[in-house]
Amino acid sequence: MSLGGRGNRGEGGRASPFETGLDRSAANHVALTPVSFLARAADAFADRIAVIDGDRRLTYRDLDARCRRLASALRGRGVGRLDTVAILAGNVPAMIEAHFAVPMLGAVLNPLNTRLDAATLAASLAHGEARALIVDAPFRALAEEAFEALPEPILVIAVDDPGGGLAYEDLLAEGDPDFAGPGPDDEWQSLCLLYTSGTTGDPKGAVYSHRGAYLQALGNALAFGLSADSVYLWTLPMFHCSGWSYPWAVVAAGGTQVCLRKVEPAAIYRAIAEQGVTHLCGAPIVLSMIVDAPDAVRVPFPQRVRCATGGAAPPSTVIAAMEALGFAVTHLYGATESYGPATICVPGPDWDALAPAERHGRMARQGVALPTVAAARVVDPATLAPVPRDGATVGEIGLRGNTVMKGYLKNPEATAATLGAGWYLSGDLAVQHPDGQIEIKDRAKDIIISGGENISSLEIEEVLTRHPAVMLAAVVAQPDATWGESPCAFLELKAGAPQPSEADVVAFCRAGLARFKVPKRIVFGPLPKTATGKIQKFVLREQARAL
Amino acid sequence: MSLGGRGNRGEGGRASPFETGLDRSAANHVALTPVSFLARAADAFADRIAVIDGDRRLTYRDLDARCRRLASALRGRGVGRLDTVAILAGNVPAMIEAHFAVPMLGAVLNPLNTRLDAATLAASLAHGEARALIVDAPFRALAEEAFEALPEPILVIAVDDPGGGLAYEDLLAEGDPDFAGPGPDDEWQSLCLLYTSGTTGDPKGAVYSHRGAYLQALGNALAFGLSADSVYLWTLPMFHCSGWSYPWAVVAAGGTQVCLRKVEPAAIYRAIAEQGVTHLCGAPIVLSMIVDAPDAVRVPFPQRVRCATGGAAPPSTVIAAMEALGFAVTHLYGATESYGPATICVPGPDWDALAPAERHGRMARQGVALPTVAAARVVDPATLAPVPRDGATVGEIGLRGNTVMKGYLKNPEATAATLGAGWYLSGDLAVQHPDGQIEIKDRAKDIIISGGENISSLEIEEVLTRHPAVMLAAVVAQPDATWGESPCAFLELKAGAPQPSEADVVAFCRAGLARFKVPKRIVFGPLPKTATGKIQKFVLREQARAL
Repeated sequence: MSLGGRGNRGEGGRASPFETGLDRSAANHVALTPVSFLARAADAFADRIAVIDGDRRLTYRDLDARCRRLASALRGRGVGRLDTVAILAGNVPAMIEAHFAVPMLGAVLNPLNTRLDAATLAASLAHGEARALIVDAPFRALAEEAFEALPEPILVIAVDDPGGGLAYEDLLAEGDPDFAGPGPDDEWQSLCLLYTSGTTGDPKGAVYSHRGAYLQALGNALAFGLSADSVYLWTLPMFHCSGWSYPWAVVAAGGTQVCLRKVEPAAIYRAIAEQGVTHLCGAPIVLSMIVDAPDAVRVPFPQRVRCATGGAAPPSTVIAAMEALGFAVTHLYGATESYGPATICVPGPDWDALAPAERHGRMARQGVALPTVAAARVVDPATLAPVPRDGATVGEIGLRGNTVMKGYLKNPEATAATLGAGWYLSGDLAVQHPDGQIEIKDRAKDIIISGGENISSLEIEEVLTRHPAVMLAAVVAQPDATWGESPCAFLELKAGAPQPSEADVVAFCRAGLARFKVPKRIVFGPLPKTATGKIQKFVLREQARAL
Repeated sequence: MSLGGRGNRGEGGRASPFETGLDRSAANHVALTPVSFLARAADAFADRIAVIDGDRRLTYRDLDARCRRLASALRGRGVGRLDTVAILAGNVPAMIEAHFAVPMLGAVLNPLNTRLDAATLAASLAHGEARALIVDAPFRALAEEAFEALPEPILVIAVDDPGGGLAYEDLLAEGDPDFAGPGPDDEWQSLCLLYTSGTTGDPKGAVYSHRGAYLQALGNALAFGLSADSVYLWTLPMFHCSGWSYPWAVVAAGGTQVCLRKVEPAAIYRAIAEQGVTHLCGAPIVLSMIVDAPDAVRVPFPQRVRCATGGAAPPSTVIAAMEALGFAVTHLYGATESYGPATICVPGPDWDALAPAERHGRMARQGVALPTVAAARVVDPATLAPVPRDGATVGEIGLRGNTVMKGYLKNPEATAATLGAGWYLSGDLAVQHPDGQIEIKDRAKDIIISGGENISSLEIEEVLTRHPAVMLAAVVAQPDATWGESPCAFLELKAGAPQPSEADVVAFCRAGLARFKVPKRIVFGPLPKTATGKIQKFVLREQARAL
């Protein structure tokens, strides 16, 4: 039996009853915006602790009132819809507040990287057309230096800095704690501007929408298991991809955020033990810091702490050491262009039965799409067709969905190059395993081609970090008259570790690598890093060429 | 310093750079639809178990292929955009599959209440303009009876019923496992049609959108703590508010759904022990069934099982007994009009220190908005202003947000009456406590007014259910020559409990209630219930009038 032409459509042109009298209204349709999580938390959890900053505690009632004050005071100072408010701050309460207050106004928040130089900062402020800058005291001198390069003065608001001009707390006092911000006109409206950390030396300003930030916060809260009982420690810079959406995600769950001005092991251990921290995020370097902490600063804690890491794959030795300390490690992968994490490595049901080294190796995979990502695929860069899920065929990671940026500000060429194919093309080369997990083999430009063979710098780095003296390893291509390119390794050693010889390290590599993959040169010394802790391979590549 | 007229807007009419070159594209904008959770799970968790049905296991790869087959076969049979596909089934795999396959087609799923009579079913099929009906074997006779009242035949698809005409599995065999459904044109498109269970005898068809279902699934998955390791047992009828969104929520988390054809204690205990169930939902009657199960069917289980209940507040005795058995009880509140749960009772940080009776009383409160609900408030029905958060001032629960229905199908009057004020007005009378928790005092029509005093029937029922012989209690108003109205109690006793006298019960009530609240009449016997297990107070009200 077929139903032929009968039905709800086309029958004498009658509109479907499912499209009649069922319109959007104030009751059933509101714009998606992460600001709504704060209003809900203030209503639902007024007396719960939203923010801990040293001895200071803000309840959700307090946080809500402070954000409304900030939004209304900024409006009183002339900041309006789609105006840019920049912030140069550590992980302090003002940073969390700005993530709600500025979008509440329909304005755009521009968190700036505190590790940048003044010239780059000034260029960002000018490019983003910032109308106001909130400056945290430790970065005052840096900001002053940047101002000299700006064509006209901007409104400066000083956090915790009595001599810094308009004080943040005085600005709040100007505001109305019951201010009902206009919010976004629609959920596609721009909400945040994030300059990429720029491993390539070409910073671009990724623009986020209210819709995207709302969905990213929900997806992360769900995937990372946040609840109203969660206590989240700020070991990830909040300026990095809007703190991977966690300023909003923790509020969506009704949990507590613990501020941390300086990421160092004593403060981390103390916060975990004293505040009952349940969740934290950070680059693998933060995990190494926890693992390698001196005995004197270690404090025991009874709870299991969930720790999400990304930016680079965590070495298996670090995962093993973290687990021994009481942490459960989750590996995330993403980019500024994808609001931070886009994939998560979810352990398979059979992984518990694996040998630790095998299991830790799998945990370092980039994993699978977050539930709020429409698609995370490894695609053939030429055809955009997905590669076979064979764990062997290399393609490029492509992402698609509402948590991909709107584009780069005032940069239609870069936007088209990055999103024009209908995917965000990440530049990361990966395989997809039969179980669906994505595993990065290398950045496109980090593949070493030696004698016609592709060598993954990641594979060599994984072996090198197993060496007991090695803290960090970075491998790049070095021009080679015979082979075209050959691997050159740069090693940063653990504090107090005995200095190995180049020959020692080569011998160590031979035990774990095919002969043609063993580095031809070994260089010892501190590694150059971006402001977010990523190793700057383009600097090392130049050094290798000059060797 | 004020910024005056400078800025990103209005400067010579220049468009804001945040509104230029940052458009929606295939890379960064997709319609929200719960169908996307299945595509993602099939990609991320292909070999994980999606559905358990007795000895049968469907992986996510299987489930995805079966849903695509069903969608494509229905299309081949003439079902198209916005056509209604009804389903009359228990909690079987076909019910889960229909929740993905029909929306995948852009068609509308209409899950029918299996406990309705044939005449009401026929009226629903006719009103919803169903073009096809999927019938599960146990409901075949009921469906046949309903067909007699239909003006023209519809396509009938028989599940697990060799003699029932077009077999569900044969239909699937017609379909394409790689079918790429058109999905919704936009996320506001209608997705489901749910007739309310009708405690008032006036059924209405609530219409859900793709956007609303997507957000409701995420909000529930987050609030109920679902993950890829969750095993969800189907003790809630899936036809009830689309199973409170759990057919989608569990897939969003990548967890496992365990089908259960018949909700009875032996099967529940067996599934918990054998399948490692971690989560289940159900009306308080399901909890009572678990608590009062005969010893012979109880099976011990090691895990803590999270159990969400709603539809009526769980009696504190039931919560206590569930906790003793190893369950963690969460109370939810909502309506068909709000896609199921809209609020959740989140325990306060200080509740652990309370005496058990006090804590269980608080756990029976309706709680606070889900993170995906824009607002849940107790409002003055006349002015819609929020009532003071004093735990005393009674108002009506109003809900607002993307998880409020689009409206009632072909019923603009009822839609306007229910949503027209810019809120979904629930008809439930409640207070809001200083901590933000909402607590229902009564349905508007369930308040008893005796001698000018308002009496909450809920308060009397809570006392009555503490009586050791009482399984269920319902209190309604009875006309009273002296007082206007007086409370009349209907009691369903526990199996095997000794029959108390009317005087015994009255004496029991006097110990726990103000004198004027003590029921004047006590009636013993089974209580009339709706198809979803709610007590039909309108039936009892008629009985009380006739006494």
